[in-house]
Amino acid sequence: MEETFVPFRGIKNDLQGRLKCYKQDWTGGFRAGIRILAPTTYIFFASAIPVISFGEQLERNTDGVLTAVQTLASTALCGIIHSIIGGQPLLILGVAEPTVLMYTFMFNFAKDRADLGRNLFLAWSGWVCVWTSFLLFLLAILGACSIINRFTRLAGELFGLLIAMLFMQQAIKGLVDEFSIPKRENPKALEFIPSWRFANGMFALVLSFGLLFTALRSRKARSWRYGTGWLRGLIADYGVPLMVLVWTGVSYIPTSSVPKGIPRRLFSPNPWSPGAYENWTVIKEMLNVPFLYILGAFIPATMIAVLYYFDHSVASQLAQQKEFNLRKPASFHYDLLLLGFLTLLCGLIGIPPSNGVIPQSPMHTKSLATLKHQILRSRLVATARQSMSQNSSLSQLYGNMQDAYRQMQTPLIYQESSARGLRELKDSTVQLASSMGNFDAPVDETVFDIEKEIDDLLPVEVKEQRLSNLLQAMMVGGCVGALPFLRKIPTSVLWGYFAFMAIESLPGNQFWERILLLFTAPSRRFKVLEEQHATFVETVPFKTITFFTLFQTIYLLVCFGITWIPIAGVLFPLMIMLLVPVRQYFLPKLFKGAHLTDLDAAEYEESPPLAYNLAAEIDIAKGCCFAESGEVLDDIVTRSRGEIKHVNSPKLTSSSGTPTNDIRGKTSPWLSDKAYSPRLNELRQEHSPRLGGRGPISPRTGEVGPSKLREGARDSPSE
Amino acid sequence: MEETFVPFRGIKNDLQGRLKCYKQDWTGGFRAGIRILAPTTYIFFASAIPVISFGEQLERNTDGVLTAVQTLASTALCGIIHSIIGGQPLLILGVAEPTVLMYTFMFNFAKDRADLGRNLFLAWSGWVCVWTSFLLFLLAILGACSIINRFTRLAGELFGLLIAMLFMQQAIKGLVDEFSIPKRENPKALEFIPSWRFANGMFALVLSFGLLFTALRSRKARSWRYGTGWLRGLIADYGVPLMVLVWTGVSYIPTSSVPKGIPRRLFSPNPWSPGAYENWTVIKEMLNVPFLYILGAFIPATMIAVLYYFDHSVASQLAQQKEFNLRKPASFHYDLLLLGFLTLLCGLIGIPPSNGVIPQSPMHTKSLATLKHQILRSRLVATARQSMSQNSSLSQLYGNMQDAYRQMQTPLIYQESSARGLRELKDSTVQLASSMGNFDAPVDETVFDIEKEIDDLLPVEVKEQRLSNLLQAMMVGGCVGALPFLRKIPTSVLWGYFAFMAIESLPGNQFWERILLLFTAPSRRFKVLEEQHATFVETVPFKTITFFTLFQTIYLLVCFGITWIPIAGVLFPLMIMLLVPVRQYFLPKLFKGAHLTDLDAAEYEESPPLAYNLAAEIDIAKGCCFAESGEVLDDIVTRSRGEIKHVNSPKLTSSSGTPTNDIRGKTSPWLSDKAYSPRLNELRQEHSPRLGGRGPISPRTGEVGPSKLREGARDSPSE
Repeated sequence: MEETFVPFRGIKNDLQGRLKCYKQDWTGGFRAGIRILAPTTYIFFASAIPVISFGEQLERNTDGVLTAVQTLASTALCGIIHSIIGGQPLLILGVAEPTVLMYTFMFNFAKDRADLGRNLFLAWSGWVCVWTSFLLFLLAILGACSIINRFTRLAGELFGLLIAMLFMQQAIKGLVDEFSIPKRENPKALEFIPSWRFANGMFALVLSFGLLFTALRSRKARSWRYGTGWLRGLIADYGVPLMVLVWTGVSYIPTSSVPKGIPRRLFSPNPWSPGAYENWTVIKEMLNVPFLYILGAFIPATMIAVLYYFDHSVASQLAQQKEFNLRKPASFHYDLLLLGFLTLLCGLIGIPPSNGVIPQSPMHTKSLATLKHQILRSRLVATARQSMSQNSSLSQLYGNMQDAYRQMQTPLIYQESSARGLRELKDSTVQLASSMGNFDAPVDETVFDIEKEIDDLLPVEVKEQRLSNLLQAMMVGGCVGALPFLRKIPTSVLWGYFAFMAIESLPGNQFWERILLLFTAPSRRFKVLEEQHATFVETVPFKTITFFTLFQTIYLLVCFGITWIPIAGVLFPLMIMLLVPVRQYFLPKLFKGAHLTDLDAAEYEESPPLAYNLAAEIDIAKGCCFAESGEVLDDIVTRSRGEIKHVNSPKLTSSSGTPTNDIRGKTSPWLSDKAYSPRLNELRQEHSPRLGGRGPISPRTGEVGPSKLREGARDSPSE
Repeated sequence: MEETFVPFRGIKNDLQGRLKCYKQDWTGGFRAGIRILAPTTYIFFASAIPVISFGEQLERNTDGVLTAVQTLASTALCGIIHSIIGGQPLLILGVAEPTVLMYTFMFNFAKDRADLGRNLFLAWSGWVCVWTSFLLFLLAILGACSIINRFTRLAGELFGLLIAMLFMQQAIKGLVDEFSIPKRENPKALEFIPSWRFANGMFALVLSFGLLFTALRSRKARSWRYGTGWLRGLIADYGVPLMVLVWTGVSYIPTSSVPKGIPRRLFSPNPWSPGAYENWTVIKEMLNVPFLYILGAFIPATMIAVLYYFDHSVASQLAQQKEFNLRKPASFHYDLLLLGFLTLLCGLIGIPPSNGVIPQSPMHTKSLATLKHQILRSRLVATARQSMSQNSSLSQLYGNMQDAYRQMQTPLIYQESSARGLRELKDSTVQLASSMGNFDAPVDETVFDIEKEIDDLLPVEVKEQRLSNLLQAMMVGGCVGALPFLRKIPTSVLWGYFAFMAIESLPGNQFWERILLLFTAPSRRFKVLEEQHATFVETVPFKTITFFTLFQTIYLLVCFGITWIPIAGVLFPLMIMLLVPVRQYFLPKLFKGAHLTDLDAAEYEESPPLAYNLAAEIDIAKGCCFAESGEVLDDIVTRSRGEIKHVNSPKLTSSSGTPTNDIRGKTSPWLSDKAYSPRLNELRQEHSPRLGGRGPISPRTGEVGPSKLREGARDSPSE
């Protein structure tokens, strides 16, 4: 995305891009059929549970003016509108913790003013929303989001980790509070005598750790060794909601021997009580707010606008990371404009506004990648089975699979990434062929176990559509009606779920992986090579990695510390924004440019024509590999025996369910790659250094790190 | 071991065999240095904790006549004597659950007799021990243990799993009881009001699951990715005792807010109170027992003798399974004779006798295998480092490592297994050489990462010595003095530990692995191939495996059911003994001989000259591989590129700490093995079917399964 500040240009570009795929956004969603319910349910829980909890928090902090009914209503309303007319449908909207904090500060300010008070609080916060939406309009129109590329991985991942820490903090605080008497409750009640309080705390520990442990386990069900495929799939898809149900059920086991309040459960207002709907008519009271307060509302509005601008864009960015290989364009400006409208709407009907949330948005993308993987998988397995039943050779089999794969591609503008998917499928098949030893003999299931191989064959792709977002938002809306049932969930299950969300958001966060790397024994660092994102381990000296990571960690802890400062705490996004100049002007003085590129590639620093080169060279490689396939392939088959493996192919770590321990040998990818035939090596040198994402070539930049070239040179005499 | 019933011959053979290595049993132990403390501490806890718990059980059941002091004393006394003059020092002795059950029945019988009563109970049980030892002498002298080979894997593993189930049952029962008022306690006490009882139960859940989870995790510390090597080693070696300490510490966190009895802790008598020593002079009262009761003592004595004969021999057998590659001879007869003496001694001083225990005995061997692995590892790594610093080629490096390895071998009679160890080291090095691409160029650490490769190079060996057994028995003796400290351990930690022991005993149990296989998705069964013991997966039809495993499972459940029948329950070993005729006469009618051999090899059915063939052919293979190494090796190097991997090399699953996911490719071992040079394949056909434990050849029988031969034939055209 180019940085342009011409008014409306960003919005126009966004709209143009997204309109082209608007129809496919819906048809694609409906074509997925019943399977769309898996990511939908998963995200619905991840979205609804924190929103309910934030609603309870808001209810305590605003003396019941705002409740879970309002937070759920806002999340549902904004979610439905965004999923239908929003730009990026991967983005999940919801009432988030910073909004809750801001509303708390605003309520504390308003309730003590004689001419404002509790009664006019909603009307005044309506004015805050008006100003906020005005500022958001300005930002969107003036193209503020085009500097989003300056929010590099450094900032985005730091923010992601900070959110994870806040979720974890909430989980721990919630658990500790289970041992004490909650505010606003009668401390004389039976369930608050010391023995029952202690019992409640211990029960809470059992329930929350039970939920956390089983939920984490169930997400990995697809790679379990036991159980049939559909059962494992079912558990992986619906295990987390199921576990919330199971542990809620467990909490009812000792009901006969414990008093009613143990374990503590969600406290939510009855949505059918008259008081729960007072706020909808707040617009009538907005003119009763004194003029000075209307003007003064601009101050909190700037804070919220900054917050939303940042949160919304980063959530969107994290949902569209490069590893996901998205095909459809981003839509930062238009989405920010729409957020302005949504904020205005929420303010006028007296509910707290929603914005793009982390970690739900990236979780959404990940779960859709799993869905797409499942869909591609079943289609290609069926194709392969059919081919084999017709006694096809491996090359025919490959051809058929390639056709099926191509048919499933969305006919869109972004063709080069589609070509990439094809090329990867092709590479994998060549590898398979060479490991099989024969390319033209008929294959059958005993030789080519498609069920077993297919997970390695498929590239990461995401089912980009609007249906899952719409459905989850509608389900959140349904929660308002289901509040009497939701009240049966123990709060301790909630804390376990918060911890689960914090942990689920970690895999794929390179910052987190670098922190882990610091604690990895030197002799085991090679294992990191076997996984995703790990180019930097090979190209950047370990000392530099350590220094960079320590810097980032200290920055993170400072940000985390700031969230503890009462009013200034809500402004921690400013600290994250400060990272932009830090990254641009300060870090290049401390680190070498090449290292910085590997540790934190910033798009605005990269050379632009890369993508086109890539596409061109794919064709060259294709020609060599397949048009004249015979000789070269024979060469590969005779010499290499299945050592070709594209280690750097992007893979999801947490939710794809593909086991990552299928590593051929422990040698570095480059060492094993030299098993590639000399002929192809010559080819590579010819078109070097950019053959495209294979072997030691970084999947992100397409560049070969200097250390690898050296290693390759040293090893070549042994060929 | 041949089946001979000539009196005293078995004992004589045992003594001859063990005397030869007696000195080495001690020197080897002392040479291990401080490291011997790791298996010692591990087994000490596994031995002491159940003994204390059984002591408490006995105290409740015998109105305090026998307590944990007596069970600990018996375990320590018998353990010390056995470790010094016993035959097989891998065998761990202790007071076991069946002994507790028998003594309970005996007490219930005695206390109601007017002329026996509580006072003469110990004297009478002394007579029972006299008869028991007499029967054990008879069995030992007449060579009853020589039929131990008829107790095949089928019986031994079924028994092992039954013991695991009993431990798990005890853990669950103990946990459930934490919620109710214990017997013999004042039900009016503060800690037994409903709220505190519930709190205690929940606290118990937290403590026991906490212990179980962390103990299981800590055992795997060696393969963790994080932390330095020595820290990981320390946690793996001492993690379980450490976790008992940690969770005992955790149990003291809420002391200020809970009454004294929460959580419940071990209840043990003060060993310095006068009543604790009444029993030592029981021999004086033995003549006061009426003559009829002296005669009648023969009846329980036969039951105990059968029990001990079986328990002791099977515990010894499970501690000496083939996978461990033991070098020193077994000693079943002599050990049974010694057990007779120990039983007599215990009876005369009024303490319950000890016998060989499961799962502690196999756990002992496993922990010593880990120890040996560590010792070999550090020595060979040092050798390799030194060689590399002198710019050695890989062949020199291999020579040096081989020399070092040979120097560490015990110069004993059992040379063919030593040769096996060497050969495996050699094979691994060849494989390494071929994956490296060059055999004669100097190697350095970047090419040959010895720390990384060494775990694959080393065969399973066990540090066979007497020191660890002696030390652990002395530490158990020390527990008598430390009882006031042991009383600080919460009972819930005990239940967690029981569950831990049950789970720790499972890996390596082929019966258990077959049960898991039944639940394994068909598409994932190939993963079983990658692990230990899994020959049968390739050679036996799945239907047969299923049927065999179902039969065994039903048999297990029947045995488990029998333990619930009050008095007859103690005789469940008879059910296991019944397996001998079932295996010998009934099963061959249901299953094909070849399948039965793969699923449950019985030594008495196998052809005897196998071992010698093996040794001879190793020499042939050696000659081809190394004397004329140049050409053949070049061939391997050029063609195969590191695909040679001896998949069937025996490996420990649970405690060796070697990660098992380093599988080169997902192809079956046979498929990858064909990458071996054609020259070697010809060789193999010449000397077929017994080249010795490599590739698809079963490590146990040396036979090639029919399905593999078929597969090999089909694949050969592609060579």
